[in-house]
Amino acid sequence: MNKIEHIGIAVRNMDEAIQTYEKLLNSKCYKVEEVASEGVKTAFFKVGDSKIELLEATNPNSPIAKFIEKRGVGMHHIAYDVSDIEIEIKRLKDLGFALIQQSPKNGADNKLIAFLHPKSTEGTLVELCQERV
Amino acid sequence: MNKIEHIGIAVRNMDEAIQTYEKLLNSKCYKVEEVASEGVKTAFFKVGDSKIELLEATNPNSPIAKFIEKRGVGMHHIAYDVSDIEIEIKRLKDLGFALIQQSPKNGADNKLIAFLHPKSTEGTLVELCQERV
Repeated sequence: MNKIEHIGIAVRNMDEAIQTYEKLLNSKCYKVEEVASEGVKTAFFKVGDSKIELLEATNPNSPIAKFIEKRGVGMHHIAYDVSDIEIEIKRLKDLGFALIQQSPKNGADNKLIAFLHPKSTEGTLVELCQERV
Repeated sequence: MNKIEHIGIAVRNMDEAIQTYEKLLNSKCYKVEEVASEGVKTAFFKVGDSKIELLEATNPNSPIAKFIEKRGVGMHHIAYDVSDIEIEIKRLKDLGFALIQQSPKNGADNKLIAFLHPKSTEGTLVELCQERV
């Protein structure tokens, strides 16, 4: 893993959350992007070499809506930047980690992504991401 | 905020969690440290310019024991590196954020730290930290 690419944070009200995070981080939101296939609206902030990604559900079946229903708002996942996501998926599968995606899919912010199941990572949803070229 | 200094992750069994994270991150744990005043044992891993901090309770009254009882294992807090923690505490208080500590205290890994209450940060426990000199 090269670095923490971003931390995903589930929120109920994106407009309010953007205001809160702009104050907290003392930094402007630089991108808002909807990922229709995932039922989420995302907002990004830069912090050093990493990002904060706020996540708001756009429909009641969105994974974010279900997460908030079960756990409340707050930290949703940690995303690690990898150089080659196919190689990293294979490395982790060979070590016994449970992958939610067996092959990468398109995510927000021009990334190829794959998630590891929290049951194999001490309760944390882990995302692998590689910049799309 | 200069960067994400670390992500704190609450775990039940530190030995197992260290093994899992060494495989996941493909990186060795470089430090284990007990913070008796907080009732926690910590273990650190480097990921790019940030760290992962695993947290295990050392007694049943530890904040980590209470967190796990209520929410289960997983992401516990996000720590941001700041250049001057006193200035940052004042800036955030003036903006209406709720500080758990009004002045910094000693934390693990040679840091001065202060926490913001999750109620003022969209449900995420936020730590400010400054390297002790």
